[in-house]
Amino acid sequence: MSKFSVIGTRVRNVDGPEKVTGAAKFTFDVTLPNMLWARVLRSPHPHAKILDIDTSKAERLAGVKGVVTGKDTLGRKTGIWRRFPEFCDEEILCRTKVRYIGDPVAAVAAIDEDTAEEALDLIEVEYEPLKAVFDPMEAIKEDAPVIHDGVDLNINATRHIEWGDVDEAFKRCDHVREDRFYCSPQAHVCMETHNTVSSFGPDGKMTVYAATQSSYYTQALMAGMLGLRESDVRVIKPHVGGGWGSKFELDSTQFCSGLLSMKLGRPVKIVLTREEEFTATKRRTPMYYNVKLGASRDGALLAKEVRVITEGGAYTSMGPTTLYLTGFFSSFPYRFPNYRYDGYRAYTNTAPTSAMRGFGAPQATFVMESQLDMIAEDLGIDPVAIRRLNMMTPNYEVPGQAYIQSCGVLQCLGEIERYVKRRGQLPPNHGIGLSAYGFVSGGIFNWFDTPYAFSAAIVRINIDGKVDLYTGACDIGQGSNTTLSMICAEELGVRLEDVRIIAADTGTCPPDLGAWASRETLMNGNAVKMAAAEAKRQLLEVAAAKMGSNIVYDLDIKDRWIHIANRPERGLSYFDVVKDAIRGKEGQAIMGRGHYTPHRKGMISPAYSFGVQAVEVSVDPETGKVKLLNAVTSHDSGTVINPVGCDGQLEGAISMAGGYGFCEDQPMDNGKLLNPSIGDYKLIRALDMPETEILVVDTWEPEGPFGAKEAGEGLTTPTAGAIGNAIAKAVGVRITDLPITPEKVLNAIKHKEEKGSTTARR
Amino acid sequence: MSKFSVIGTRVRNVDGPEKVTGAAKFTFDVTLPNMLWARVLRSPHPHAKILDIDTSKAERLAGVKGVVTGKDTLGRKTGIWRRFPEFCDEEILCRTKVRYIGDPVAAVAAIDEDTAEEALDLIEVEYEPLKAVFDPMEAIKEDAPVIHDGVDLNINATRHIEWGDVDEAFKRCDHVREDRFYCSPQAHVCMETHNTVSSFGPDGKMTVYAATQSSYYTQALMAGMLGLRESDVRVIKPHVGGGWGSKFELDSTQFCSGLLSMKLGRPVKIVLTREEEFTATKRRTPMYYNVKLGASRDGALLAKEVRVITEGGAYTSMGPTTLYLTGFFSSFPYRFPNYRYDGYRAYTNTAPTSAMRGFGAPQATFVMESQLDMIAEDLGIDPVAIRRLNMMTPNYEVPGQAYIQSCGVLQCLGEIERYVKRRGQLPPNHGIGLSAYGFVSGGIFNWFDTPYAFSAAIVRINIDGKVDLYTGACDIGQGSNTTLSMICAEELGVRLEDVRIIAADTGTCPPDLGAWASRETLMNGNAVKMAAAEAKRQLLEVAAAKMGSNIVYDLDIKDRWIHIANRPERGLSYFDVVKDAIRGKEGQAIMGRGHYTPHRKGMISPAYSFGVQAVEVSVDPETGKVKLLNAVTSHDSGTVINPVGCDGQLEGAISMAGGYGFCEDQPMDNGKLLNPSIGDYKLIRALDMPETEILVVDTWEPEGPFGAKEAGEGLTTPTAGAIGNAIAKAVGVRITDLPITPEKVLNAIKHKEEKGSTTARR
Repeated sequence: MSKFSVIGTRVRNVDGPEKVTGAAKFTFDVTLPNMLWARVLRSPHPHAKILDIDTSKAERLAGVKGVVTGKDTLGRKTGIWRRFPEFCDEEILCRTKVRYIGDPVAAVAAIDEDTAEEALDLIEVEYEPLKAVFDPMEAIKEDAPVIHDGVDLNINATRHIEWGDVDEAFKRCDHVREDRFYCSPQAHVCMETHNTVSSFGPDGKMTVYAATQSSYYTQALMAGMLGLRESDVRVIKPHVGGGWGSKFELDSTQFCSGLLSMKLGRPVKIVLTREEEFTATKRRTPMYYNVKLGASRDGALLAKEVRVITEGGAYTSMGPTTLYLTGFFSSFPYRFPNYRYDGYRAYTNTAPTSAMRGFGAPQATFVMESQLDMIAEDLGIDPVAIRRLNMMTPNYEVPGQAYIQSCGVLQCLGEIERYVKRRGQLPPNHGIGLSAYGFVSGGIFNWFDTPYAFSAAIVRINIDGKVDLYTGACDIGQGSNTTLSMICAEELGVRLEDVRIIAADTGTCPPDLGAWASRETLMNGNAVKMAAAEAKRQLLEVAAAKMGSNIVYDLDIKDRWIHIANRPERGLSYFDVVKDAIRGKEGQAIMGRGHYTPHRKGMISPAYSFGVQAVEVSVDPETGKVKLLNAVTSHDSGTVINPVGCDGQLEGAISMAGGYGFCEDQPMDNGKLLNPSIGDYKLIRALDMPETEILVVDTWEPEGPFGAKEAGEGLTTPTAGAIGNAIAKAVGVRITDLPITPEKVLNAIKHKEEKGSTTARR
Repeated sequence: MSKFSVIGTRVRNVDGPEKVTGAAKFTFDVTLPNMLWARVLRSPHPHAKILDIDTSKAERLAGVKGVVTGKDTLGRKTGIWRRFPEFCDEEILCRTKVRYIGDPVAAVAAIDEDTAEEALDLIEVEYEPLKAVFDPMEAIKEDAPVIHDGVDLNINATRHIEWGDVDEAFKRCDHVREDRFYCSPQAHVCMETHNTVSSFGPDGKMTVYAATQSSYYTQALMAGMLGLRESDVRVIKPHVGGGWGSKFELDSTQFCSGLLSMKLGRPVKIVLTREEEFTATKRRTPMYYNVKLGASRDGALLAKEVRVITEGGAYTSMGPTTLYLTGFFSSFPYRFPNYRYDGYRAYTNTAPTSAMRGFGAPQATFVMESQLDMIAEDLGIDPVAIRRLNMMTPNYEVPGQAYIQSCGVLQCLGEIERYVKRRGQLPPNHGIGLSAYGFVSGGIFNWFDTPYAFSAAIVRINIDGKVDLYTGACDIGQGSNTTLSMICAEELGVRLEDVRIIAADTGTCPPDLGAWASRETLMNGNAVKMAAAEAKRQLLEVAAAKMGSNIVYDLDIKDRWIHIANRPERGLSYFDVVKDAIRGKEGQAIMGRGHYTPHRKGMISPAYSFGVQAVEVSVDPETGKVKLLNAVTSHDSGTVINPVGCDGQLEGAISMAGGYGFCEDQPMDNGKLLNPSIGDYKLIRALDMPETEILVVDTWEPEGPFGAKEAGEGLTTPTAGAIGNAIAKAVGVRITDLPITPEKVLNAIKHKEEKGSTTARR
């Protein structure tokens, strides 16, 4: 019997009914009296000086209420790196220069969207085109055009990680191989494009409805750019249709609607088109990997050296963190005694690359897992055996970086090994590839330099026993409202239906850094658990006094019954105790506050999820076409709070990470994206989805609420590597650049037939 | 490098200098203006009705100021089992009946001790002697005299523990043996006899200076017996010269001095003579053990059944707990899948038996470890191997009883195995015996039904950074003042010299249950750590505000320096921050409160110590004389807070437990103790002490302060069994009753030579 009453049960999402009936309100559904619509004018040039902007014709168009350009701003630059002003480099409305096709230069507010769109054509911008550079390997050359003044060789950021003595260790290796890999860009493709309604009132206060992953970041960043006090900006997050890293920086819809609303004194709504969403929002970072890997004869990994150059696009965004994390995860999930990483992020005249589900880890894992199979083959060692020999174990310290407490990756490997054995002999041109991985449960890195706790929550128990849970956590479709309500109900000993969550409204909820790096379950979950425990304590105090029991008896609450833990028949009704407790507090509702900030866990994350995935593909040797048949994942999330949510994360991850592996891409021509529509951008469709299965392993994370850790982004990291390894098993060719298209596979097969080689490069 | 600054260092006891210079004040040293001395008149009969007491002659003696008898009391009965009034059966001043030789019947206060002593002879008590019974096996017979009205068969308490299916399991055993053992009484022999100064003032309030292990128990029990409000009795514990379980129940010096002081309005001092200390205070419980032990061929212990009858003496005292714990520890430290225990405590007309260092465990361990060697010999298995096979492991649950988190007993066994191997071949008639054991770190059992937390502490930081630590913990020579000051200094990041401890004065310190069951380090230690952490938190809040640092940076204090944990060069002076913090609190000193009550740890203890001891003896086969040569102990105390204190506990324990094993005893003649002096009671003297050594194992107890657990009583539990096993190795005879005197050994050797048997019984 489970020790939990709510946690681990298969519940319906708390906002499921409104979503499936269409009643759920997204930002797009927000309509305010007197509201205007706006559109953003964007640069058609990848790199150009702005010589002049003439908005007069647009302003004269009937129905147009106002136009803003860089001249209307305070001239500030935004960025999430508040501790490092040099990384805050994005004006949003460019004043003197544009740096990619899609960079905003003006915004028009009008009585309707069509009028605003029409007015965009009437704005005359005089550009002086500049030489542009698109490939990071070109951008770092001496003669490349300078994208940001004062940034030498366009190198935006460098990152270095090192432990042990790498050079000495390579000398001791029996086998060393060096390989190059390329990891492609990827678009988030949220079902809801970026959109915002900003309303600046006569009281000098701004209310913002935004599709955001962090109402707190949006609040602070908007206030900063618009010259308002933080608390004069209230950000309300309605339902959100996906974020995956694209929605926690300040975006053009937020800034331009806010600026227009301040100028016009009316609410302003901006909704990006799908084409803008593809061309003018952020995306997954393309990376060039150069990796040297050394092992002993028996497969012990002794040393690894990694050099990475990333395509940064026009602005810093979250790029330096992606750059660091790809280096950090390039050692995962293995115990390297000697390791060195050097990463470089180059500015280019393309849309900025930033955070996307996995945050540098999908790239690192594709490279690690591909090369591990390659070196295993060199050494004649089974892919399972080489992984088992080198995997991280509980209580492992990544030197100088991270303290890993729970770690179930070996158990996951055992599950996958048993699965693969059960599958037995495969048909011709079929292959199963493995990929192991680890991921963070929230980030410790505090670029934002918030003085608030990372997460906070308030629990209020009302006179009828109903519980209001206030939290800044942002449900962006990942289900945090449900998970956090479950944690609250479990800790308080009430039913899930007793909890009402009020979330992500900066006017009514305590601040939380938001939904990124898979942080809400662990970090906000800890805050919610603490708040509920604080409220529970007040109830138990009253119950203990009423029962007059021996103080060593443990009181507990389960299913609205307050009782002696080991004698459940001796107890009191939760509802009665709530009434008495409120009476004792002179009529105040019971309140509990909780907060969480990671401490003493190194510099990356308070806890790490792990897993191993096995993917089965078939390859048509005539066409090179790869079919994804099965994806079986053993994932160590610690205690699974919400199994239905976990299943949903897995299925979504397979779709997204499979697409990253063999079909999604962003081809450009001189900085112009060639496939800015869902018709042209090749997602895995429902009918292409493989069978998916999750094999649970039982671990307990001491730092997580009820032993939990993340189950969101980690699941996107293994699939590309597993696909690559499966293709190698199926048809004996190794593709080292993503995505693994039929063309590449076919070329490699042909090349192999011609030359007998097993490796093809881009 | 140790992660601790204070903990684990070899410091001088905080009260060492006063003790070694003679400046330390014990209760005996307390002299108050107008103070009287008193003596107690005691029964010369083991069992008698009191027909009349005539105190008139005594009262007329010059210098006598007053006499009290049972008539002067409220007629209440004392006992520590406040939840079970039937166990509160001791009047102290008997009104109608005496039950052992030494039972108090009157007390006289006079201007000096000699006068009081002289007056005792003038009190005329008319007794009607009753038939008495001394042996518990006789006391439970139908025709035995009734010692307490209404108690059938003189059975004071029964205790039952059972799990698994014992009867079924015995059927599956390859080998079963049944044995009987006898465990002898033992006197505490504190260097300081019981003594008290009570002073009842004109304000109706009582101040008591007492040699007590629990000032809180003394306060509550005295108030109860004298009809005062608890808080009107202030108990101050001066230095105490040993307790070992003899000083936490209400005693005759406390009650009689209090009663006399109330009657006379003057301070009254009573000091027991050494003879009274031997005859009329409590002692270790003699026990008759009947044990059935079953194992598989390979030595797996499958079932154990234990029946115990204990000699209770005249009153309940702590006897029922001793009775329970000896049953609990009879499974220690092994994983029995099937276990049954039945214990019976019989009243007898002897001095009450109660708690003594080890609390039932030395008896259980002597029996367990003797019989384990016996069954190992039967099965031809090495004593180390059979122990290793069956030992408890971390996170083991004793079914229905206890949750054991840390458990290093297997590591201890490894240390001892290596030691024994190093010793190599021994000379003839030498033997090494092993004994494994476990013990509690404080008790969860709350017989006292206190509504207060089990432990509490207050930390106050003054303007100059000096720290006052207030706690009810009782230093009785075991060193808790030092250990708790170390915990406080470590948590606060100051030096040990910065801490002043004010302890065990109920007028100024928060209540603590006192020093018993080895509870102060873990329980009070947790309270002290919590109080210090609460004070520290207030300093770090101020420091963080002053430093303006990133909130993810961990602040810490080490050696009076408040700094960023991983960047010790960035910090502030502790002294400066203290001043600023006090300024910020409108001039109030920094205060932190802490408390501890065990929760969710079963019903016995929050944590368990473990160990293995090897004792080497030589036996003179001509005389049977046993010489204790070496005692090497590997003890798992978790983190050792105070290594010097731990060494001291070990040496004292070897002396006490060795004495229990082979020389200390309390022979009686019709209820009269034959050796009531240190001259006649055979303690191990300094010159008889073996070489002792402690082998540290490194464990961490999650429930203990800084990972600590007990190191006090556990160390007294193994030695008798180890001595018995060593003698068996040395000369091939097995003694199953304690103490193992030369006479018994010689008889057994002779018996063995005559009959070829290896077992001798009493």
